[in-house]
Amino acid sequence: MPSAEHITVVGSVALDTIETPYGRAEDTLGGSAVYIGAAASLYSPVHLVAVVGDDFPMESLDFLREREVDLEGVRVEPGSTFRWEGRYHRNMNRRDTIRTELGVFEGFRPELPASAAEANYLMLANIDPDLQLDVLKQLKDPQLVAFDTIKHWIRDKHGQIEELIRQMDVVIINDEELELLTGAGSLLAGADQLLEMGTRCVVVKKGEHGAILVGRDEVPFLCPAYPLAEPKDPTGAGDTFAGAMLGYLAATSDHSPFNFRRAVVYGSIAASFTVEGFGLDRLMNLTHSELDARFREYRAMVEF
Amino acid sequence: MPSAEHITVVGSVALDTIETPYGRAEDTLGGSAVYIGAAASLYSPVHLVAVVGDDFPMESLDFLREREVDLEGVRVEPGSTFRWEGRYHRNMNRRDTIRTELGVFEGFRPELPASAAEANYLMLANIDPDLQLDVLKQLKDPQLVAFDTIKHWIRDKHGQIEELIRQMDVVIINDEELELLTGAGSLLAGADQLLEMGTRCVVVKKGEHGAILVGRDEVPFLCPAYPLAEPKDPTGAGDTFAGAMLGYLAATSDHSPFNFRRAVVYGSIAASFTVEGFGLDRLMNLTHSELDARFREYRAMVEF
Repeated sequence: MPSAEHITVVGSVALDTIETPYGRAEDTLGGSAVYIGAAASLYSPVHLVAVVGDDFPMESLDFLREREVDLEGVRVEPGSTFRWEGRYHRNMNRRDTIRTELGVFEGFRPELPASAAEANYLMLANIDPDLQLDVLKQLKDPQLVAFDTIKHWIRDKHGQIEELIRQMDVVIINDEELELLTGAGSLLAGADQLLEMGTRCVVVKKGEHGAILVGRDEVPFLCPAYPLAEPKDPTGAGDTFAGAMLGYLAATSDHSPFNFRRAVVYGSIAASFTVEGFGLDRLMNLTHSELDARFREYRAMVEF
Repeated sequence: MPSAEHITVVGSVALDTIETPYGRAEDTLGGSAVYIGAAASLYSPVHLVAVVGDDFPMESLDFLREREVDLEGVRVEPGSTFRWEGRYHRNMNRRDTIRTELGVFEGFRPELPASAAEANYLMLANIDPDLQLDVLKQLKDPQLVAFDTIKHWIRDKHGQIEELIRQMDVVIINDEELELLTGAGSLLAGADQLLEMGTRCVVVKKGEHGAILVGRDEVPFLCPAYPLAEPKDPTGAGDTFAGAMLGYLAATSDHSPFNFRRAVVYGSIAASFTVEGFGLDRLMNLTHSELDARFREYRAMVEF
């Protein structure tokens, strides 16, 4: 295996308050960049770019440091850390956002330190698309660039979203966002529209139903989710998916359709571990041997 | 391959009025028994047991006769045929039932003709669970028995539903029904409850997201749906799934976990054809070579 490529992750570091039928956690570490970084660092060197307030307990990021995640790009600004509060319903398919307090995240203007700018892989988690476009310019030699977004930006900054899609290697989007963005009556038709806009491939996330990978001139790849008897907390599952997928691609430096499929499976499997625990609990201590064991178990679930 | 076992199908023959974003059809042939019979007869000899009113155009069943479906059990009673009217929303995930007129179906008391009673396979489509239990007693030598139901009976006749599950080889149920029936927080936990009640295996239908097969002491089988760029009308997809699955099992007379998985895949693929057309349009002319070609295409979509 070649030496792993570096990944720069730009997104949020947050303090989440989460309520599910299984329990409640207050001001617990969260944020897209944390989940993505934690998952990607299982495979590749990661540079984290984010902002926190001066109320943020920096020691909570120690587990990332131990995985040799470069935190130089995590800036501390005077003010409050981004806080999010969400509540999940019984079957976990739906959640209500109770509270969003942007704090210092509102003024976030990502500046890549030299080390982060030299990474060849980039994961743009959900932030203002104008900032995502700006980060893209800061990367010196991008080899594989992926982005995620939310409905808010699809509605408010449609032009910038289209410009991003034009420049992406991988668009990671959930089924509802894809429908809002394209108006298409099926995931395949929606993904085809994004391919026409310019991205090299599309990964449609369907939560507990798995994901579909759609590339140009390729047979789509159907990846059902690893089924859990007791899902505990879906927070961060989508970010874990993206992080592990990109991490695996960076570690293998192989962009063939076959390896992309394996990357999607590893992303899906990593996400299943996240959902098994509360917040970052499970992802924080996840090991390669656990991932590989579940990968084999998963294969036995889809063979026929 | 051994000679195919016979399947008896008990359910409804209806006149459906369907509205989707792609069009509208009035009083078109439908009903669970018709979809199941049409799909199962692609693989095995079928005996249909149902009731229609004296307003029913019997010639509309000619295509089943041509597939050598035995219609001796389809009784004509004075009165109106069961009519159902439904409207699908844009993304086809949800439908509203506009109208249900039971007509002669309200007094349906299924009596199996001798030929139907001698079949070894039985598919009990959704009817009153008391009647389903009664049909079960009429079968002389059941080898593989499957049933489907709806929320109405799960709410109103819970005891009978549990008795049926105890006697079933295969319970075919959708995700919402399973949640209502078991109160479980996940499909796996719900399916396990049904296995504890006594059925040998459970197939959970998830519509456009595919199906999961859960058996005792076996690794679950995840079967994502064949993706369609232009789904036209989901009416009858679940019944097509059940029919093709049972038909394949009856044709192969092989109840091994491996063959069950293939049967689920064939069910899923047959259902995808039904959704591609309006009402029975596509299923009516479906050929084995089309099914086999899509089976191969599907395999290429799930390999990694």
